[in-house]
Amino acid sequence: MLDTFGELRVPSDKYYGAQTVRSTMNFKIGGATERMPIQVIKAFGILKKAAAEVNKDYGLDPKIADAIIKAADEVAAGKLDDHFPLVVWQTGSGTQTNMNVNEVISNRAIEILGGKLGSKDPVHPNDHVNKSQSSNDTFPTAMHIAAATEVHQVLLPGLQTLHDALAAKAEQFKDIIKIGRTHTQDAVPLSLGQEFGGYVQQVKYSIERVKASMPHVYELAAGGTAVGTGLNTRIGFAEKVADKVAALTGLPFITAPNKFEALAAHDALVELSGSLNTVAVSMMKIANDIRFLGSGPRSGLGELILPENEPGSSIMPGKVNPTQCEAMTMVAAQVMGNHVAVTVGGSNGHFELNVFKPMIIKNVLNSARLLGDASVSFTNNCVAGIEANTERINKLMNESLMLVTALNPHIGYDKAAAIAKTAHKEGSTLKATAVKLGFLTEEQFEQWVRPQDMLGPK
Amino acid sequence: MLDTFGELRVPSDKYYGAQTVRSTMNFKIGGATERMPIQVIKAFGILKKAAAEVNKDYGLDPKIADAIIKAADEVAAGKLDDHFPLVVWQTGSGTQTNMNVNEVISNRAIEILGGKLGSKDPVHPNDHVNKSQSSNDTFPTAMHIAAATEVHQVLLPGLQTLHDALAAKAEQFKDIIKIGRTHTQDAVPLSLGQEFGGYVQQVKYSIERVKASMPHVYELAAGGTAVGTGLNTRIGFAEKVADKVAALTGLPFITAPNKFEALAAHDALVELSGSLNTVAVSMMKIANDIRFLGSGPRSGLGELILPENEPGSSIMPGKVNPTQCEAMTMVAAQVMGNHVAVTVGGSNGHFELNVFKPMIIKNVLNSARLLGDASVSFTNNCVAGIEANTERINKLMNESLMLVTALNPHIGYDKAAAIAKTAHKEGSTLKATAVKLGFLTEEQFEQWVRPQDMLGPK
Amino acid sequence: MLDTFGELRVPSDKYYGAQTVRSTMNFKIGGATERMPIQVIKAFGILKKAAAEVNKDYGLDPKIADAIIKAADEVAAGKLDDHFPLVVWQTGSGTQTNMNVNEVISNRAIEILGGKLGSKDPVHPNDHVNKSQSSNDTFPTAMHIAAATEVHQVLLPGLQTLHDALAAKAEQFKDIIKIGRTHTQDAVPLSLGQEFGGYVQQVKYSIERVKASMPHVYELAAGGTAVGTGLNTRIGFAEKVADKVAALTGLPFITAPNKFEALAAHDALVELSGSLNTVAVSMMKIANDIRFLGSGPRSGLGELILPENEPGSSIMPGKVNPTQCEAMTMVAAQVMGNHVAVTVGGSNGHFELNVFKPMIIKNVLNSARLLGDASVSFTNNCVAGIEANTERINKLMNESLMLVTALNPHIGYDKAAAIAKTAHKEGSTLKATAVKLGFLTEEQFEQWVRPQDMLGPK
Amino acid sequence: MLDTFGELRVPSDKYYGAQTVRSTMNFKIGGATERMPIQVIKAFGILKKAAAEVNKDYGLDPKIADAIIKAADEVAAGKLDDHFPLVVWQTGSGTQTNMNVNEVISNRAIEILGGKLGSKDPVHPNDHVNKSQSSNDTFPTAMHIAAATEVHQVLLPGLQTLHDALAAKAEQFKDIIKIGRTHTQDAVPLSLGQEFGGYVQQVKYSIERVKASMPHVYELAAGGTAVGTGLNTRIGFAEKVADKVAALTGLPFITAPNKFEALAAHDALVELSGSLNTVAVSMMKIANDIRFLGSGPRSGLGELILPENEPGSSIMPGKVNPTQCEAMTMVAAQVMGNHVAVTVGGSNGHFELNVFKPMIIKNVLNSARLLGDASVSFTNNCVAGIEANTERINKLMNESLMLVTALNPHIGYDKAAAIAKTAHKEGSTLKATAVKLGFLTEEQFEQWVRPQDMLGPK
Repeated sequence: MLDTFGELRVPSDKYYGAQTVRSTMNFKIGGATERMPIQVIKAFGILKKAAAEVNKDYGLDPKIADAIIKAADEVAAGKLDDHFPLVVWQTGSGTQTNMNVNEVISNRAIEILGGKLGSKDPVHPNDHVNKSQSSNDTFPTAMHIAAATEVHQVLLPGLQTLHDALAAKAEQFKDIIKIGRTHTQDAVPLSLGQEFGGYVQQVKYSIERVKASMPHVYELAAGGTAVGTGLNTRIGFAEKVADKVAALTGLPFITAPNKFEALAAHDALVELSGSLNTVAVSMMKIANDIRFLGSGPRSGLGELILPENEPGSSIMPGKVNPTQCEAMTMVAAQVMGNHVAVTVGGSNGHFELNVFKPMIIKNVLNSARLLGDASVSFTNNCVAGIEANTERINKLMNESLMLVTALNPHIGYDKAAAIAKTAHKEGSTLKATAVKLGFLTEEQFEQWVRPQDMLGPK
Repeated sequence: MLDTFGELRVPSDKYYGAQTVRSTMNFKIGGATERMPIQVIKAFGILKKAAAEVNKDYGLDPKIADAIIKAADEVAAGKLDDHFPLVVWQTGSGTQTNMNVNEVISNRAIEILGGKLGSKDPVHPNDHVNKSQSSNDTFPTAMHIAAATEVHQVLLPGLQTLHDALAAKAEQFKDIIKIGRTHTQDAVPLSLGQEFGGYVQQVKYSIERVKASMPHVYELAAGGTAVGTGLNTRIGFAEKVADKVAALTGLPFITAPNKFEALAAHDALVELSGSLNTVAVSMMKIANDIRFLGSGPRSGLGELILPENEPGSSIMPGKVNPTQCEAMTMVAAQVMGNHVAVTVGGSNGHFELNVFKPMIIKNVLNSARLLGDASVSFTNNCVAGIEANTERINKLMNESLMLVTALNPHIGYDKAAAIAKTAHKEGSTLKATAVKLGFLTEEQFEQWVRPQDMLGPK
Repeated sequence: MLDTFGELRVPSDKYYGAQTVRSTMNFKIGGATERMPIQVIKAFGILKKAAAEVNKDYGLDPKIADAIIKAADEVAAGKLDDHFPLVVWQTGSGTQTNMNVNEVISNRAIEILGGKLGSKDPVHPNDHVNKSQSSNDTFPTAMHIAAATEVHQVLLPGLQTLHDALAAKAEQFKDIIKIGRTHTQDAVPLSLGQEFGGYVQQVKYSIERVKASMPHVYELAAGGTAVGTGLNTRIGFAEKVADKVAALTGLPFITAPNKFEALAAHDALVELSGSLNTVAVSMMKIANDIRFLGSGPRSGLGELILPENEPGSSIMPGKVNPTQCEAMTMVAAQVMGNHVAVTVGGSNGHFELNVFKPMIIKNVLNSARLLGDASVSFTNNCVAGIEANTERINKLMNESLMLVTALNPHIGYDKAAAIAKTAHKEGSTLKATAVKLGFLTEEQFEQWVRPQDMLGPK
Repeated sequence: MLDTFGELRVPSDKYYGAQTVRSTMNFKIGGATERMPIQVIKAFGILKKAAAEVNKDYGLDPKIADAIIKAADEVAAGKLDDHFPLVVWQTGSGTQTNMNVNEVISNRAIEILGGKLGSKDPVHPNDHVNKSQSSNDTFPTAMHIAAATEVHQVLLPGLQTLHDALAAKAEQFKDIIKIGRTHTQDAVPLSLGQEFGGYVQQVKYSIERVKASMPHVYELAAGGTAVGTGLNTRIGFAEKVADKVAALTGLPFITAPNKFEALAAHDALVELSGSLNTVAVSMMKIANDIRFLGSGPRSGLGELILPENEPGSSIMPGKVNPTQCEAMTMVAAQVMGNHVAVTVGGSNGHFELNVFKPMIIKNVLNSARLLGDASVSFTNNCVAGIEANTERINKLMNESLMLVTALNPHIGYDKAAAIAKTAHKEGSTLKATAVKLGFLTEEQFEQWVRPQDMLGPK
């Protein structure tokens, strides 16, 4: 096959053409694992379909439009995934992936219409599939469609799953009173339900944060064409395409109010990545707590019993490695790193076009997917099966010297402190020490030192 | 002076006491430039005043309460700044700064009431100033007050100033047509006003982003005391304190719906930091563009004339260094770094208390202040004085080969391409080449190739 | 197939066993693109071979040992890649991948010996393949082998390729004098060779930096077993395995002097990642410069002519998008992000084991690969073909007002400044202005203002 | 006072002049806490002295040179700190600070020589103090001097102090056998000395890493002047200045082999920052371990007794908050953030000059100082006083089910596993269970299960 740069071999079993092949030759970076995320390809399928529908309204030959629509549908459905071999590390505008899509759709449409692959007839990749479009506005549009879809299909359901499981545990554990820990040191008590309630709140806010960062992601660049002016497109095209995409995805996409911003910057995705970073921070905290609270079986904190999912060791029963916590915290670290990559890429746009587009979307999609998947895995294989080791919890709580706080109003600070200091020094209990020191009776102790009365303001 | 750890020398001209002195001895890290940000101290002044007012409602001796209120007012007003010597690198709960505040307010209140400094009588730092409070809930409360105040007093006004100046320039430049640049290469035209309009949009969204990340910052931990349960405080204390703080600051503070989350995590500030990071990304883009568009005077792009604020060089007239852009981009890099510090700190909380509090708030405040100040400096000393070098802009635009795009509908793609290729090869103009090649007349060229018709869809 | 957790279906065409299958069920995170990097699997092949050889020395049945060695060789050679389905997001010790390797090697060895797959007889995955080993020391050993190999096979050759191409260009361009730019503004001249010489130095130092960070990567954890003590292994095993691995790879691996550090921390890889981050910083600078120096063709700086590798646009000749620079700068951003992920993971180890191992090695390998590949791509498709636009370079240089600096010693600063200011104001040349102002003759100007004399100290 | 931009008020009690004042007016960013680090000013003192000495050799009037040298000495000694009011957020080349230094030294030298402040006579800030120099080479030179000095005076001694204290503890604890923990779960034993030995190794390597990243920091840009060519300086100046600086500081400074790289990039400081980042990672691990091992007093791991440095709580004896660990981990997070700021700044240089210089050096110095200071504080107030809670350690170790591992060679895996499982289920000891199950006698158990034999290979 020929392109304007000379002859090239294009595999005969593939729909893509010369520009795609040339990209594979010029960008041998990273190999197959570094391919453009398939979600971007599917988003392009949606966009190309929407554009063809609008172009049909504006006069594109219905036969051609319909063939494009059908081919684009197949791309969106993932039926042609093998025809998108390009890696992320290509031109920073994603032009080569846009052309890959144009080539595949045009050839598939040609095939549908009975034409000859590679002939560009009757469906031309540029003139028809890319009509009224530029890589510079289609790629960012596909980025936003892909990101929003991944957030809605993977991330938010994953977080909701985790939220609900934690909320169920908070309810289940609401009457279990345990020692609190501040600075990793023993502190005054709270209920295990309250402790889990903190996690529930973090995940609830995670969901809110992600949703709050979506409005600008719903803004689509389509219609801006090469530099944002909309040269070579039609008045109304932008709005109609956004409407079509919204209808096809069920998400509230609109046309970006300012196309210059939409091409030259990717602040909306940096913002979303910032939310994912915050979610990662929450996940790190929760997973860390759970593995420490479940540490043991005998020499750790041992307050939680975590599900045993795989042989921990060939020798040791009870050696439950908190592997789901480990996967989650690794994901959290990755998301924090991805966020820096997105930040650096987002900050380095110049003039009318940011050219870190493929890298940015790769990282945003990766973060969303990993957090969503890990939330489900963490829920199903860990959180849902967590049990409280009430015997251990009670023991630790009852031994705690912090309970002496409750005596202050009755015998005064000085005597209370003397009890605690003596008990600590002698390794005895508060009650025994209090009675021995003659400050109060056993009955009084039991009446006054009641952990269940220490869980809230009075 | 004595504390429970032995004798210590406390400077006689200072209101602080033994716990503050001990912290200065135990944490010799970083020196004076690393002090707890004064905004945190002032926020503590507001909080301690609010708490004293509520405690008065709940029965605290009005004489004591009023003296505390007066002293706290002085702290909030910055009158006692010299009495807060502690550095950020102390205990991670900020306990020592809370005690510093308690000591200063108690001693100043004692002084107001005619007592003896250091006597803790009649105003005790713990029993009265810290009443119904713990470091674990007061420090995060002060963090939120300080962050919200800095955002409202410094950051948002700074961004608004920049926004308005850029918007004025976009209006001023709306009729200046210039060459666009994508991939840093020549592209189709847009107006300089459209280009600045992209920046306006970025700053407009920056303001929206910051505001959108404030709701959880308005949630105050006060009332959670040591572990979030509210032990040793009173029902209603949390809500009343939040109301008082809201009234004192004019900001919509509320009591945090979940105090466990509010002590154990700082997701709200990680979220805010994420917004500041996005703002930094926007600023980097805008400042980079402006310095490149203003590069020259003769060997750069030279489209903008930047204000000359200081002697650029002892020799070269016209050597305007874009120093305001440089300050802004350095700030942007700092904010991105600060954000990672906040992220790492936020992710490493354990159990009932995150102990990276002073580090987190230091970075958030630094980011907000630097972005706000730099926005004003950049506006006043750069943006407001930018002028368009219309001669240069016109020259570049008219020489651009990209204008050939307009001929496609009239003479077809092939002839248009031939014109452009020939002109590029021969270094001549499009018009001369077009006429020479016999594809059209000079009049036709002038009628069809009109940059002013290339600024939008048709 | 059964494991101690119950019955599981294991695909009959795969060598892996129950523990691998269980991991695929418990860790549905990220999908196929998130698989454990194949370099880790190959490194395991090398390690298992080395361990089997040493175990044979220590008495392991030679028949079993030899079968393991043969199977391990196949793993190292990449012949069994399809048998390693696990993702990175598993247990943080990489235990499941170690078991995946043990299962595959044991079954393949059983097959070689004519036994029944899954029978664990005569080659047991734990007792024989994993003999004297633990996941806790084998996984970090494989991490180091993989990282060092990737650095030597991909990264360093890639950097050397780039270095040599840049050095050739520096030589080629050594007599081309051009305007310098500081603050993006016109400055005094230098040669284009000097400018490229700066890039050469950066890449030379990149290579040095990477090499300088390798010594601790050459330290292998093997022999530390579960917690670093070397329990259940033999005196000398650690040293012998390191020797074998060194022999097999040709790299100077040694046994880690302190196994506790080698299991509990991954500072060596954080250090390497820090070097990769510095390399990324260098690459960002170089690629940015080249795309700006090559910007145009008419409205940019236009000093460099970059190779045209693909159709830049369907209309515009001369629109060479600097796509290789874009791929390189995207890679640089990714490496910076990866580095933060590695940093966060490296910092979060606890007690005797860091459990962010798979995530850490994934990122280090990704950074090394991307930088190495992108260096080669950038060299072959961009640097090697760069030409100087000498006409443009000369024009800019000769028009530059900065050349007036050379007159200072002859006519004094004040007169020189007057010339420059007047020339700038009137848009005329320095020479014409100087003569017009009567400060010197045309001949004197030509004698004194010689850019070629401004390239070094006197 | 007048400069070329008009009249300005310069404070009469200050040595600085108009350019400094103008900078304070144009860069109102961040306030006093954001001042250029004083180490940079002192480094400038050293550099200006060295340059004056060399200029004297090259013919500068000895009277003037000597006055400059004396004034520069005062700057280096910190005697004139109040005369350097500029903030970091100024021009990215640091020109304004270079001019601040030139103004202060010239005026102080004028004063020494009996002249009139502000007269520039007989010592001119540019012609004499800045002779043969440019901001573009002096500022990076001062950056390197400051960084190297801080590393040698603060960081390395701090790390050595920590190293020695940890090594002493490793020795002190070498015979205390304790339970190991992997995945935060109980594992086979090691000695507390071995555990601390891992920390010792990390700090030893930290020192090595920092030293290994110094060679390029010792390269000085001085002599490159404006763009790296050395225009307007003398052959030999660069080498002589580096020699003088080396003599004055006692550090092995040399002249940078390539001045273009030395001005346009700051890879050497990015590299150093990468080492500091790795040190931070090590510190985070060590400090985290120590606070968890010291957690309690009753409900934590409780193996270490940390020094009690301040009242932990007004009620609770034994509530030792690990505040030094907290300061250290906050420092670690800050250093990680600083590193990203340095990375972003380092990557964004353009052409002949990186203009993120002040920001870069601020962060590098901050990281070095914080790590150095925190190491000393952590050593003196925590590590040096750590004691082992041997009672607790023994109890946990002896209760551990992991010890069963030692029975494998004697009774076989299956029986050993049965013992462990039964003991876990019944909450009894291994010994009691083993005897009860009839697998061995009490004497055999005591002979075979000996933790002290489990600390190394056999």
